[in-house]
Amino acid sequence: MLTTLEPKQQQENLLKATKSVFRQMFDDTCQAIEQLDGTAFTEQPWTRENNTWVMGESKGDSIYIDRALLGGTVFEKIGVNYVAINGELPPGMTFQKAGALATDEADQIDSEKGTPFFATGTSFVIHPRNPMVPIVHCNYRYFQVGKISEPQYWWFGGGADLTPAYLFEEDAVHFHKAHKAVCDQYDVAYYPRFKKWCDDYFHISHRGESRGIGGIFFDQLNHLPAEQLLEFVTDCTKVFPQAYLPIVERCKDMSFTEENKQWQRIVRGRYVEFILTSDRGARFGLASGMVNHQSIFNCMPPAASWTYDDQPNLGSQEASLRAVLKQPREWV
Amino acid sequence: MLTTLEPKQQQENLLKATKSVFRQMFDDTCQAIEQLDGTAFTEQPWTRENNTWVMGESKGDSIYIDRALLGGTVFEKIGVNYVAINGELPPGMTFQKAGALATDEADQIDSEKGTPFFATGTSFVIHPRNPMVPIVHCNYRYFQVGKISEPQYWWFGGGADLTPAYLFEEDAVHFHKAHKAVCDQYDVAYYPRFKKWCDDYFHISHRGESRGIGGIFFDQLNHLPAEQLLEFVTDCTKVFPQAYLPIVERCKDMSFTEENKQWQRIVRGRYVEFILTSDRGARFGLASGMVNHQSIFNCMPPAASWTYDDQPNLGSQEASLRAVLKQPREWV
Repeated sequence: MLTTLEPKQQQENLLKATKSVFRQMFDDTCQAIEQLDGTAFTEQPWTRENNTWVMGESKGDSIYIDRALLGGTVFEKIGVNYVAINGELPPGMTFQKAGALATDEADQIDSEKGTPFFATGTSFVIHPRNPMVPIVHCNYRYFQVGKISEPQYWWFGGGADLTPAYLFEEDAVHFHKAHKAVCDQYDVAYYPRFKKWCDDYFHISHRGESRGIGGIFFDQLNHLPAEQLLEFVTDCTKVFPQAYLPIVERCKDMSFTEENKQWQRIVRGRYVEFILTSDRGARFGLASGMVNHQSIFNCMPPAASWTYDDQPNLGSQEASLRAVLKQPREWV
Repeated sequence: MLTTLEPKQQQENLLKATKSVFRQMFDDTCQAIEQLDGTAFTEQPWTRENNTWVMGESKGDSIYIDRALLGGTVFEKIGVNYVAINGELPPGMTFQKAGALATDEADQIDSEKGTPFFATGTSFVIHPRNPMVPIVHCNYRYFQVGKISEPQYWWFGGGADLTPAYLFEEDAVHFHKAHKAVCDQYDVAYYPRFKKWCDDYFHISHRGESRGIGGIFFDQLNHLPAEQLLEFVTDCTKVFPQAYLPIVERCKDMSFTEENKQWQRIVRGRYVEFILTSDRGARFGLASGMVNHQSIFNCMPPAASWTYDDQPNLGSQEASLRAVLKQPREWV
C-alpha cells in the first residue's frame, strides 16, 4: 500500500508511525512499571524557547517529556523520556563531533549553516531499590538529517542492556533469550551481531570492564527500508517489559544486607562513569545543547559511591560478577 | 650560584628541587590532616611494568604513590597522590589530545614516535563528613616534554579551590585572602588573573554553574625562569593547609540534618560530573593511559546523589549557594 503513495506522503506516514511506536512504548512501559511498584511517575514536559529549554507544554511540533519515579517501593529511581524533536544542530556542530555517531555519514550536509534534523525516541533507565534486582537501560530512537520530507540520511538505533550488582545467571539468560527471539524473527544474524555490538559499546574502557551483562545494541541501522526496520524496532520495544519485569518480580523481595547495598552503590558509580565518559546520548545532549541537562541526568542513580580499592574478596559473589564483566559471556 | 653551573647540572638540580617541594607538601599536609582527624592514611605505591600499573614499590626512577583516608572522624574520604614520572606518551597521543593542555605548544615533538615527558606533582581532594565543611581540591605540578636533561617545553600548573555545600562567606574570604597574600608577594597581577582562571576552569558548562567558590588556578606557567616559578609554587603548596584547615576546625562540629547531608551528596554529584567531563588531570590520565584508574578515581566522593529536579527552595541556604555558583563573586 505505502509504495503507491507519493514519496512525501510516504515519508510523512513513516514519521507518524515511528513517533507513535515510541510514544506507545513510553506509555505502556510506564504503566506496567507503575502497576508493579504502586507508585506513579511524575511528568515534566519541556518546550524550546529562544534556544533554551523551559518547563512547559510545547506549543510547536517538537515534543519533549521527562518522567521520573522517585522513592518507589520497588524502584528507587527511574528516569524516562519521550522525544520528537524537529531541530537544527548549531552551526559547526556535527553528529560525529557531538558524539552521536561513530562515523560521519550524517555530517555530509554543510554544517556551517546548522544541520536540520528530526529525532524521535524513548529511553528508560531503572534503578531498583533491592541490590539483587539489576539496573536496566533501554532506548530506541530514529534520526534523520536534512529536510524533514526528504531526509538525506536516516537511521534507527537503540537496544536494551542489563547491569546487575549480583548476577543470577537465569536472569541473564532470560533477558538475552527474550531479545534473541525478537531478533531471530527478522534475521538470525541480528542477535549475534547486536549482542556483540552491545558488549563493545557498553564497555568502560578505563576500567577494562563491561558495564553489565549486555543485551542488544545497534546504531545507524538503515540496510532495509525504514518501514521494515520500524517493524523490527516495534517488536524490540514490546519485548522490553517482558524481558525485564519478570526478573524484577523474581528478585525484588530477596533479602539483602547493608554490604550488598554498598556494593550496589559501587556498581552505580561505574554506571555514572560510563554515562559521563562514554554514553552517546548523554554526549550528544551535552555537546549539541539540543537536550536540557535535567533530562540528560534523569538517568543518573539516586546514590553512587566510590572507595579507594573496590576489589572484591576472592571467591565472593561480587568477584564472580567482576570476572564476567572482564570477559563477556554468551548467554544463549 | 645556579647560573654558573652547566645547563645539564642546572636542569638536574631543578628537577630534584621540584620533586622535593611536591614530596614535602605531600608529607606535611598529610601529617597535618592526620593530626586533625586522628585517623591515618593508607598508602599504596604503584610501579609500571610492561606498560601497566601494578601495586608495589617502583624499582625504576618513576614514583607513584596514592594515599587514602577513609571513614575518618572529620573526613569521610580523602584521596592524595604524589608522582614523579619519567614517561612517554603513546605514539599518536599528544598533550592537547589527552586533554592535559588547552594549546599545542607541548605537542611540537613528533608524536608518531611517542613523546618523552617528565611530570611531578601532588594532588589532594578532601571530602569532609560534615556538610558544613567544604570539599577542597589542591594540585600543583610540573611538566616537561623532550629529553629529561634538555626539555623543549616545560610548565608549572595547579591551584586550590573550595567547593562548599553550605556557603559561609567568612570561609570563602579566608581561603581567597590566604592565596592572594602568596600571589601578591610575587606579582600583584597574579591573584586577579589566577582567580579568574580558576572560575573559568572549574566551570561545569552543561550546568552553567561553577563547581565551587574558586580559589586560584594556573596552567602552562613558564613566563619566568623555572627556578623563580618554583619559589612561587613552593609558597602556594605551603599556604594550602593554612588556607583550608582553619575552615575545617571552625565548621567540623556544626550540627546538621539528614537534609543537609543529602544536599552535600547532590553537590558531590556535580563534583563527579566535573571530574568525568572536564577535569584536565582525569582526562589526561584516562586518555594517555599514563595514570592507573584507581589513582585517578581516588578523588571521587564516598557518596553522591542525583535526583530529578534538584532546584532548591527559594530563599533557602541551598538556593543562595546556587546563585553564587551561577555568578562568581570577588571575595577579597
